[in-house]
Amino acid sequence: MTFDYRARLDATRRLMETHGIGALLASVGADLPYLIGYEAMPLERLTMLVVTGNRVPVLLVPKLEAPRVVERPEVFEVRPWSETEDPIGIVSRLLEGVGSVVVGDQTWATFVLALEERLPATRFGVASPLTRALRMRKDPEELDALRRAGHATDRVAARLREMRFSGRTEAELSRLVADMIIEEGHQAATFSIVASGPNGASPHHEAGERIMQTGDAVVVDFGGKLDGYCSDTTRMFHVGEPTTEYREIFAVLEEAQAAAVDAVRPGVAAQDVDRTARAIIAAAGYGEYFIHRTGHGIGLDAHEHPYIVEGNDFELDAGMTFSIEPGIYLPGRFGMRIEDIVAVSDHGVERLNCSDRHLAVVG
Amino acid sequence: MTFDYRARLDATRRLMETHGIGALLASVGADLPYLIGYEAMPLERLTMLVVTGNRVPVLLVPKLEAPRVVERPEVFEVRPWSETEDPIGIVSRLLEGVGSVVVGDQTWATFVLALEERLPATRFGVASPLTRALRMRKDPEELDALRRAGHATDRVAARLREMRFSGRTEAELSRLVADMIIEEGHQAATFSIVASGPNGASPHHEAGERIMQTGDAVVVDFGGKLDGYCSDTTRMFHVGEPTTEYREIFAVLEEAQAAAVDAVRPGVAAQDVDRTARAIIAAAGYGEYFIHRTGHGIGLDAHEHPYIVEGNDFELDAGMTFSIEPGIYLPGRFGMRIEDIVAVSDHGVERLNCSDRHLAVVG
Repeated sequence: MTFDYRARLDATRRLMETHGIGALLASVGADLPYLIGYEAMPLERLTMLVVTGNRVPVLLVPKLEAPRVVERPEVFEVRPWSETEDPIGIVSRLLEGVGSVVVGDQTWATFVLALEERLPATRFGVASPLTRALRMRKDPEELDALRRAGHATDRVAARLREMRFSGRTEAELSRLVADMIIEEGHQAATFSIVASGPNGASPHHEAGERIMQTGDAVVVDFGGKLDGYCSDTTRMFHVGEPTTEYREIFAVLEEAQAAAVDAVRPGVAAQDVDRTARAIIAAAGYGEYFIHRTGHGIGLDAHEHPYIVEGNDFELDAGMTFSIEPGIYLPGRFGMRIEDIVAVSDHGVERLNCSDRHLAVVG
Repeated sequence: MTFDYRARLDATRRLMETHGIGALLASVGADLPYLIGYEAMPLERLTMLVVTGNRVPVLLVPKLEAPRVVERPEVFEVRPWSETEDPIGIVSRLLEGVGSVVVGDQTWATFVLALEERLPATRFGVASPLTRALRMRKDPEELDALRRAGHATDRVAARLREMRFSGRTEAELSRLVADMIIEEGHQAATFSIVASGPNGASPHHEAGERIMQTGDAVVVDFGGKLDGYCSDTTRMFHVGEPTTEYREIFAVLEEAQAAAVDAVRPGVAAQDVDRTARAIIAAAGYGEYFIHRTGHGIGLDAHEHPYIVEGNDFELDAGMTFSIEPGIYLPGRFGMRIEDIVAVSDHGVERLNCSDRHLAVVG
């Protein structure tokens, strides 16, 4: 896929000018691939794009990684630096005379602090208030990539319903999920949470050596990257028939998740989507067990703006994509979560995950 | 595995006192697992250990990730924060009255800049000058973990020599390597570079859709995590017989790599190990094609101190572990690299990778 990087850089510069920002520095994280189609390796050698108002943007890249860069001379200039050069010095010189700089949110502290020391008169801030204004609204090509990534995970979810869970460890099933993520068309499997029985009450549980057995509820939450864009979905499985209690709580969760999705449309505040899910779960008496926000934006980053959380009164708009993933977690007993990625459309919502959301009873 | 975290924290505090540092903040990166055995998720919700001189260290962790934390009340206190709390505010209050703070090198810019804004009178620096003094010298348990990780990759390297390369894509072989990394005992496969033919001239090439064929030299550079510790080794393969030219250049590389390993012992400067490898490659006329340093430290982080690079006159000492990985890269034609992890012993060096280093001719 290729995007109009020139247009993105132009839009970024217009925002910089509006906000009185003299330079934007993009390193690890998704601002860099958004702006020029190149992703920095998360290592101790600095990769950094320097965007200023008055010259072609410069990509500093370690010399040994320069062959990885797809050059786009009409968009940016490549400046490889060798092992005995000082990349912070090079960036500092490019920033001479610039009063206000913003840096990508995930840039390493070591680089930010070194730049601040070198440029004591310069003001540093984070780039996301600028870049999110652009990155939040996906264009048709981005939506297409997110749709394809979502549908690829849907196929994994469908295959999971037919699989045997009992007797396998969480780690083993997690590996199988990662393999299926690739088989169904992703270039990378980013994560595959398998949280069984009481482990399900830990939303970010790491799949471990617990052997799954009859009576376990199992949270499977997984995603990957397809053409640079992320997928992320959660489905619930139960080894053997669940108890009536589990079914009843699950019905509450299904209702909350569906209602939150239905609440999505242009003009609605992000926090109102969270409130919709939370009100239903609270009314059923499980409010204190829904211990996280309802969702997060998704795109080039697995988590990005907008966040669907109380306190965020930002108004949703067409082209925004995010997860809707309420959960209920009873410590020491079990957990449950249902997660879909959705896109705000012109008048409502499109689900990018369409696989069966019902509790799957597995062997 | 469990380590004496209390002793590590005590040693850290003594260093803080010596250097006049009032607080250390550990977030993403390896300082945190080194100090308390917990690894932060690299996400937008803040995880941060606050170590000050006068109280039990506090681990701030997102509420939904609190169940992941193995609690060690004698070592640190857990402070889960919920979605509507302000974690930067909590850290700022813990830092009241502290004049000088160091933060882990990989901490996200967004957190560092927010803390600086909240605490304008506080001086911020990076933690590695402090923590590397401890983390560089591995204790016997750490060496054991690194040895087991090294030997696990050796078994993968041995299996690779028997495999068919021809007709497979780089990406396909890369997936097989990742699977073998797990099969041989790692908990995670971190990376598996497969760079064939001209792609071999790009040291950090990402395995792609190129189909390997007779006549290709193939760089395979891979590693994972075993009990928290990293492995990293590179071996060279050739599909069918190589040319005389390739054999001759490879002999130079073998000599350079072996000489650099032999140069390692306590008291030698890191840069002298680099110079040993570089002199041999330069004498053969390939100096300009050895475009990176000779090695990097390894431990909880895949890349850490000490770096084996010109300009680093730091003296090696027993217990330090790092890679020795010279390479020669002819743009547009081919590349080659041989990489072993070594440990400085009391009087010399121990190789943690012992698999066959000779060029493997494969089908």
